[in-house]
Amino acid sequence: MTTEVRARLRSDARDNRERILAVARAAFAVGGLDVPLREIARRAEVGAATVYRHFATKEALLAEVFADQMASCAEIVRRGLAAEDPWHGLSVVVEELMAVHTLDKGFARAFSSRMAEPAEFAAERDRTLASLRKLVQQAKAAGSLREDFVLEDINLALLANEGIRAETPEMRLAASRRFAALMLQSFQARPVAAPLPPAVRLPPAQA
Amino acid sequence: MTTEVRARLRSDARDNRERILAVARAAFAVGGLDVPLREIARRAEVGAATVYRHFATKEALLAEVFADQMASCAEIVRRGLAAEDPWHGLSVVVEELMAVHTLDKGFARAFSSRMAEPAEFAAERDRTLASLRKLVQQAKAAGSLREDFVLEDINLALLANEGIRAETPEMRLAASRRFAALMLQSFQARPVAAPLPPAVRLPPAQA
Repeated sequence: MTTEVRARLRSDARDNRERILAVARAAFAVGGLDVPLREIARRAEVGAATVYRHFATKEALLAEVFADQMASCAEIVRRGLAAEDPWHGLSVVVEELMAVHTLDKGFARAFSSRMAEPAEFAAERDRTLASLRKLVQQAKAAGSLREDFVLEDINLALLANEGIRAETPEMRLAASRRFAALMLQSFQARPVAAPLPPAVRLPPAQA
Repeated sequence: MTTEVRARLRSDARDNRERILAVARAAFAVGGLDVPLREIARRAEVGAATVYRHFATKEALLAEVFADQMASCAEIVRRGLAAEDPWHGLSVVVEELMAVHTLDKGFARAFSSRMAEPAEFAAERDRTLASLRKLVQQAKAAGSLREDFVLEDINLALLANEGIRAETPEMRLAASRRFAALMLQSFQARPVAAPLPPAVRLPPAQA
């Protein structure tokens, strides 16, 4: 085998790996984590064996797919913590977490699913949660976050965000923006009514 | 046929009808509207023919099952409109609609599903929405509801409420109560931070 051929084979393998990851990311984002590996192979136009050569298990594929989002989540919280005003920091964190969460169904599922929790995932999540907890304490100490706010309220807001349905992804994102602004209004210790992002026409009224 | 026998047959038919309705109400509340008529017949311990004798179509059964909840919804809004203080009226409406909505999955689906919308349903819903719109105007006129609030925000809150998952129905209801209180905080024109119902431990954090 010439050096050139070996390099070509390595490059093909790398391309396959990237393509599988890109396809998996898109598939999980839209359909959640139930999309089977063989369907991902089909969409990536590779054989199932090729998928298994790169990712021995679905967990391995998931961990890799979500490593980026997990990192960007950690980065969102890190920036929030670095903000001069902790309330501003926390507001940006809530808005951005909610946007990530709205755009990527698979990401939300990855956090709640047992399957998608390899050890490094859990460790990174714990670090991010610890930072978030610190930010919450700072915002309370500054008197801007209500005293009876608990970390679980962010979880409550994110779970609730999952319920928001709309005709298009753009409308869903817009509705979710207004929802995040409303939640932030409610989290304030000394609330001031601030303008909201525009309302969005949603599916038929539920009641 | 003696009078007694005829009375007995009428009474049996009435019992069957009531039993089918009770079973359907419970089945739709837990499983949504997809539960087939034959499954309802099985759980009510009657033949499918008996179900069809009382309810020619699934729409007919649904209309009857949800007539009660629709009426109680209309009643919630009517009482809200009758409250002396429109903000108090609107708060009770939001809290109660959310509780009904949390307890009864079928009810929420009935409102959004095409199938479950016979003409009398739509008419009653329109009347209730008109009353709700009036209450919203009154609360704005009183300066207690934010000017940029739109009716769609109640829909947004109810859709979001659907996303709230918890380990038990009781926990879900408690989480939903806190959520309703938070939403009401955010709807105020001149917000005052009021105590919230207790937080509830929810499924693993989503982010």
